[in-house]
Amino acid sequence: MPLPMKELFDIPEGMIYLDGNSLGPLVKGVSDAVKDAVEAQWGGQLIKGWNSCGWMEQPTRVGNQVASLIGAPDGSVVMGDTLSIKVFQALAAGLALRPERRVILSDNGNFPSDLYMAEGLIDLKGQGYALKVVDPEDVIAAIDDTVAVVMLTEVDYRTGRRHDMVAITNAAQAAGAVMVWDLAHSAGAVDVDLAGSGCEFAVGCTYKYLNGGPGAPAFIYVRPDLAASVTPALSGWLGHKAPFAFDQSYTPAPDIERMRVGTPSVLQLAALERAMVVWEKTSVAEVRAASIALCDLFIAEVEARCPQLTLISPRVGAERGSQVSFAFEHGYPAMQALIDRNVIGDFRAPNVMRFGFTPLFIGREDVIAAVDVLETVLKDRLWDAPHYKTKSRVT
Amino acid sequence: MPLPMKELFDIPEGMIYLDGNSLGPLVKGVSDAVKDAVEAQWGGQLIKGWNSCGWMEQPTRVGNQVASLIGAPDGSVVMGDTLSIKVFQALAAGLALRPERRVILSDNGNFPSDLYMAEGLIDLKGQGYALKVVDPEDVIAAIDDTVAVVMLTEVDYRTGRRHDMVAITNAAQAAGAVMVWDLAHSAGAVDVDLAGSGCEFAVGCTYKYLNGGPGAPAFIYVRPDLAASVTPALSGWLGHKAPFAFDQSYTPAPDIERMRVGTPSVLQLAALERAMVVWEKTSVAEVRAASIALCDLFIAEVEARCPQLTLISPRVGAERGSQVSFAFEHGYPAMQALIDRNVIGDFRAPNVMRFGFTPLFIGREDVIAAVDVLETVLKDRLWDAPHYKTKSRVT
Repeated sequence: MPLPMKELFDIPEGMIYLDGNSLGPLVKGVSDAVKDAVEAQWGGQLIKGWNSCGWMEQPTRVGNQVASLIGAPDGSVVMGDTLSIKVFQALAAGLALRPERRVILSDNGNFPSDLYMAEGLIDLKGQGYALKVVDPEDVIAAIDDTVAVVMLTEVDYRTGRRHDMVAITNAAQAAGAVMVWDLAHSAGAVDVDLAGSGCEFAVGCTYKYLNGGPGAPAFIYVRPDLAASVTPALSGWLGHKAPFAFDQSYTPAPDIERMRVGTPSVLQLAALERAMVVWEKTSVAEVRAASIALCDLFIAEVEARCPQLTLISPRVGAERGSQVSFAFEHGYPAMQALIDRNVIGDFRAPNVMRFGFTPLFIGREDVIAAVDVLETVLKDRLWDAPHYKTKSRVT
Repeated sequence: MPLPMKELFDIPEGMIYLDGNSLGPLVKGVSDAVKDAVEAQWGGQLIKGWNSCGWMEQPTRVGNQVASLIGAPDGSVVMGDTLSIKVFQALAAGLALRPERRVILSDNGNFPSDLYMAEGLIDLKGQGYALKVVDPEDVIAAIDDTVAVVMLTEVDYRTGRRHDMVAITNAAQAAGAVMVWDLAHSAGAVDVDLAGSGCEFAVGCTYKYLNGGPGAPAFIYVRPDLAASVTPALSGWLGHKAPFAFDQSYTPAPDIERMRVGTPSVLQLAALERAMVVWEKTSVAEVRAASIALCDLFIAEVEARCPQLTLISPRVGAERGSQVSFAFEHGYPAMQALIDRNVIGDFRAPNVMRFGFTPLFIGREDVIAAVDVLETVLKDRLWDAPHYKTKSRVT
C-alpha cells in the first residue's frame, strides 16, 4: 500500500501528529482487539486464558514480529517489562560476559534512563564498576580494554543523530567489549540490521514507531549463539526452564525465554500485536525512504521560512533517525502554541523543538501544513503568551 | 452491599470460579474503562494524554487505593512493573540498609519467583551474599545477626498457610534485620495491617484478589520514614526527581515515586483502577470474615464427602489465607475433570488441588455445588481419562 496509509489509523480530525516518535497513534482495530482480550479472553476464559488464548506464548510470538523489523531472526527477541528493565538485563548480562572488566561506556546522547539504570547496576555490584560517559563522536576512541560493555542508543532522542551501528559494534568487539544497542528510536523507523551488526544485545520500546500504545512492553534481543548461556540477572519465574514445576531454585530457559521475568502484560500485548498489522502492508525499507524525504522537506521549508530556528539534527538523511529537531530559545512556549493549533510535536530541555515524521500516517502535505502553522507562530510571536509558559508535568 | 456481590462481575453463566486467587474475574465496567483509555485517551489525546488524562499520576493514585486495603497510609504505595521486579527492588533496598550483613532469609513456602529473584540479585552482588531458605515454621529461629533481610510471602501459594506478620517482623527487627513481605495472596483477601506491623517493605500483585486482569501491575510499599532515603536499585527515569529535566545522572524522587522505573502500563492500570470500585461497596474486614466461613464450609463438606483428599491447609481460619488446598495423588487429572465441569480451581505440583474463595463473587451455594461436582468426579473416577492427563503449558 502506498505511504502514507492514513486509513489504517484513528487520528483526530485536523491534527498533524509529529510525535509518533514519542507515542504512536491508535491503529484501527486495536480497540476491538483489546476489547476481545478483556471480554472474550479474560472475561470468558479467566484462568484458562493462559492456555486457550496463547497468553503465555504472546511475548515470543510478538517478539518474532518485532524481530522481523529489526533484522533479527525468529526466536531472538522476547517482549516484556519496560525498556529500562530490559536495559538493566542487557547490561548485567554483558558485564557477566566480561567478568575481568569494570567499565560500562556510553555517551551523553543516550537516553538518560539508560544511564540511570547503569548507575543503579553499578551501585549494586560495587567492586570498582564504573560508568564512563563521553560525547557521541568520541565513543570509538574511548573504547579500550577496560571496557566491558558499550551501551548506546542508536538514534539520539533529542537531535535524531544516528550512530554507525556496524562501525561501533566492530570497534567494541575488536577491543573485547560487549555491545548493547538501544533501538527505542529505531525499531519501525530505520533500517536496522541487528544480525548483520553482530551485536550481542539490543533493547527497545514499542510505543513509539511500533504504535503499541501507552505502556506497551519493551523488547530484548540476544544474539542467538549466546541465548543459551547469558545471565538473565532479573531471574523471574517466567524465565525459568519450567515455571510451573515451581522448583526451589532457578534454572534458566535454554533460549531467549530466559530473559522473561514476570507475568506478561496481556492487555498491552493485545494492543501491540494488533498494531503490528500495519507492517503487513508496507516495509521498514519503504518507511525509511519516505521518512528521509519528509525530514528533508521539513528542514528545507523551516530553514526557508523560519529563520528563528537552528537545525540541530544532522543534515544528511542517512545520519539521522526519523525526527528533526531545532533549537529555539523560546522552544517551550512555541511548542505549546503549535500544539494549541493542532500541530503536535514535543519539547526537550533545554531548548529543543522536536518533530517526528512517521510516514505510516504523515505525508508531504502534512509537512507543508505544519510549517505554515510554525511560520505563523514565530512571525506573529504567538508563543509569547503567559499560558504557554507554564510547564506541565510531562513536557 | 451484602456479600457475595455477583452482580458486579461478569462471570460466565454456570461457572463456579474458585481461582480468583490466581486471576480475578472481570469486573463490570472494566471493559468500558479500558475502551475509554484506548479510544478517548490514547486515540483522542495521544501524547497529550500524559498530562490531560493523568497517566503520569496513575501509579500513585492507584497506589493509594491499594494502600487503603492493606493498612498503609496514602503516599506509601506505588504501582508498576511485575511482582518479581518489585521483589528485586525491595530486596536490593533492604540489603543496602544493612551493608555489613550478607544473608537473605526466606522459607520454602515462598513463591519460587521470589527466591529466584533473590538468587539473581545475589549473583549480581557477589561479595559473599547468600540466600538461606528454611521451613516456614523455622523462620524465627533462623533469624540471627548475619541476616540482612527476611523476605516472606504472608500466605503460602500452595497450602494457604498464613504467617504471623507481626511476630516475624518483630523478630526480624529485634535482630537488626529488614523485613520484606510479599502480599500476593493477601491484598484484598486478608486483613493486612502493614503500618501496624512496622515492616520496612511490602510488595504484591493485583491480578489475584484485586481483579486487575492478566498482566495487571504490581505494587510496592515503603515504610514512610524510609521513603526519602532508600535505594531504588532499578533506578529508571520515572523514579527520578525530575524525569523531564533529562539530567545525565540519577537523583531519586524524595518519596515513594523513587520506586517507579519506566513508563507505566496505562491500559493495564485503567483496568485495575476501574476494578477497584468493588471496594467502595464492601471492606476487607467483611471479605475476610466471609472468606473464613466459606473455607470452613468447604473443608467440612469435602472431608465429609471426599475421603480421597487430604487437607494440607491449616484448619484454623486465622492461620489461613483465602484458599483451601487438598493433596490428592491424581490431583492433576482430577482438577482437569472439575474444570471440564465448570468448577474452576487449579493444580500446583506435585499433588495439590487448590481452591480459592473470593467472597466478592462466591457464596455458600457455590461451595456446596462445587463439592457436589468434586464428589462425583472422585466417586465415579471421572478423572481417570487419558485426555485429563496431558499437561498444559500453564497448569
